[in-house]
Amino acid sequence: MLIVQKYGGTSVGDLARIESVCNRIIGSIKNDNKLVIVVSAMSGETNKLISYANHFSKTPNLKDMDMLLSTGERVTSALLSIALNQKGFKAISMTGRKAGIKTNSAHTYAKIVSIDNQNIQDKLNDGNIVIIAGFQGVDQNQEVTTLGRGGSDLSAVAIAGAIGADLCEIYTDVDGIYTSDPRIVKKAKKLSEISYEEMLELASLGAKVMQNRSIEMAKKMNVNLIVRSSFNNNEGTLITKEEKIMEKPYVTGIALDNNQARVSLSGVKDRPGIASEIFTALSNENLNIDMIVQTIGRDGETNIDFTIPQSDIQRTKQTLKNFTHDFGSADYDEYIVKISIVGSGMRSNSGVASKAFTTLAQEGINIMMISTSEIRISMIIQRKYGELIARELHSIYGLDVV
Amino acid sequence: MLIVQKYGGTSVGDLARIESVCNRIIGSIKNDNKLVIVVSAMSGETNKLISYANHFSKTPNLKDMDMLLSTGERVTSALLSIALNQKGFKAISMTGRKAGIKTNSAHTYAKIVSIDNQNIQDKLNDGNIVIIAGFQGVDQNQEVTTLGRGGSDLSAVAIAGAIGADLCEIYTDVDGIYTSDPRIVKKAKKLSEISYEEMLELASLGAKVMQNRSIEMAKKMNVNLIVRSSFNNNEGTLITKEEKIMEKPYVTGIALDNNQARVSLSGVKDRPGIASEIFTALSNENLNIDMIVQTIGRDGETNIDFTIPQSDIQRTKQTLKNFTHDFGSADYDEYIVKISIVGSGMRSNSGVASKAFTTLAQEGINIMMISTSEIRISMIIQRKYGELIARELHSIYGLDVV
Repeated sequence: MLIVQKYGGTSVGDLARIESVCNRIIGSIKNDNKLVIVVSAMSGETNKLISYANHFSKTPNLKDMDMLLSTGERVTSALLSIALNQKGFKAISMTGRKAGIKTNSAHTYAKIVSIDNQNIQDKLNDGNIVIIAGFQGVDQNQEVTTLGRGGSDLSAVAIAGAIGADLCEIYTDVDGIYTSDPRIVKKAKKLSEISYEEMLELASLGAKVMQNRSIEMAKKMNVNLIVRSSFNNNEGTLITKEEKIMEKPYVTGIALDNNQARVSLSGVKDRPGIASEIFTALSNENLNIDMIVQTIGRDGETNIDFTIPQSDIQRTKQTLKNFTHDFGSADYDEYIVKISIVGSGMRSNSGVASKAFTTLAQEGINIMMISTSEIRISMIIQRKYGELIARELHSIYGLDVV
Repeated sequence: MLIVQKYGGTSVGDLARIESVCNRIIGSIKNDNKLVIVVSAMSGETNKLISYANHFSKTPNLKDMDMLLSTGERVTSALLSIALNQKGFKAISMTGRKAGIKTNSAHTYAKIVSIDNQNIQDKLNDGNIVIIAGFQGVDQNQEVTTLGRGGSDLSAVAIAGAIGADLCEIYTDVDGIYTSDPRIVKKAKKLSEISYEEMLELASLGAKVMQNRSIEMAKKMNVNLIVRSSFNNNEGTLITKEEKIMEKPYVTGIALDNNQARVSLSGVKDRPGIASEIFTALSNENLNIDMIVQTIGRDGETNIDFTIPQSDIQRTKQTLKNFTHDFGSADYDEYIVKISIVGSGMRSNSGVASKAFTTLAQEGINIMMISTSEIRISMIIQRKYGELIARELHSIYGLDVV
């Protein structure tokens, strides 16, 4: 098999960890696999470099930042190659540039534009384990760029797609994807498989394991992802096409998001385009609106409720000041939680939503807002009920570990 | 003026030092100068990376080492650019590759082959302070290379030559070049000027300030070098063409080298080519022979004396085992010192050597070996007399500070 393995910061956090990764790679190569390894910076290194830069400027030049931040992954890839060669395995380290990763010029949050896989292929054909510094590429002027948060995952997935790898293993410090946050739902269990679409919903709901952009890239390029731990030998979670998933429970996971706040605008004037004006203004300030519900009030006026990240409340208040003549009052509620039920089985099971609503009704809990996608139902309720309901739904949908 | 400034590891050793370098650069730019800055890694960083590599292998792959070692200078250059931009000065950082430094493929000790100065010139013309990561370049395959010991000095000198800089300032932690080692000769004084040739002699005699390769490059490219401290505002020492030097004392400096050992081969058989065979064998083992003296003994046999670095005694003994039939006995003497008198004024002053010999004779000190160049006299004497004689000669040749 042709496998891309990506090792995150904690997986290569010190020299002993790099040694351990080295042994894991040797275990993989012994099974007659061809390997491309993508590495992050040793944990703490990137933050150290950022703190150095911030010592001099709170708003450093982004091109300089990329010059600075791209060094950490180079160190790890060189060290890993040195370790593998010492153990008698032919390995070669390369930068994002040598790996053919072309990006746009958006320094520190660049997008991958294309990958020229020739050099990787050549080095694989020569019998090398190819070690690539993740998180980086070059723009059309050959300037080093970095890919922003989750950038090394993105490098790994994009490379796996470009070379047609059979598998892309993301090694991290968690065992895989769980049916819910195990810190809250003690009976949460690790999923053996999950579809890209479900993973996207869970990731956008706060499952921190992988960023949406990497999962979207994997979906687009049809890359089979496995998320697993580099600290043990447990099997991880396979993220793949829905068609490939054997067992399809109609609900895959329950997610809780405590970081939302609800904004309620009441008595909004009934004139055409008013909602559009408000949301355009908020969007221009890069305020991230999630759920939106509009209801008709009396006298032709309407109420508009929406959710924002709690950290954006002040900026939202500021932006809404320009619209004070357009609505009666604005209320802000931080004591809410978004609880979401995710599962591609919902498409063919109409009873999923009603089961949730019944559960909440039986507990006497008011649902403030509801939004749905094809494979997700999200509800806003009072914060204090969040964990209780997460555990109940987890049990009701048959997700509890037995 | 167009000035290249190079800041060594201790000069950029921590964030406070980088801040201080930043202010020095601003002082220079305010005098209407155009500046190119070449930086080393923060002191300790390169050694840390080497120790990381050696944790995995005592003989790491040299290409991986270059991937690893080239990161330190990138960090410094990015940080310095961030600091300058924050203070309102237009600065841009670049790698050796972007600076157009092309080398051969001798990883970790690469030689500069050429410099394409276009990018530096363009960025200078756009009004930038150009900050370049020293110590590195790329080979014809665009692989990163490093230049070995003193590599950042070499980068600076080569760039100064390539862009026709008026001056190349080497900032370090010493004030300049002294007439002798101030720790031994208390009355040693700082030279305001010295010729390339004299500096080459002093450097090869153990003056640690700059490596010969950088001085040779400066001489070849006609670069005016100034060695000075980044820790104070003292004027440094100008290293330049002999013709440009105003005041020409006939002796410029006295150097002591305690790291030599003497090898005496007596009773060497008188057959053609024997000396050549012995020295070829030693040279093939990369043993660095310095002085050689051959004297005729009795019965047509000869004696051959030569000096080697003390650290190479064992390897020399090993190599000479192949020649046991060719000479009578080999003696090794570590208790020697090489004392050298350097000065381009010697060319026109025949009395320099005899003055030294007279001094030693008056003290009753035996000269074991003598070698000379156009501008240098070196003598091997017993180790215990080294410091005494250095001080006496320093005084006799009028070098003492008054």
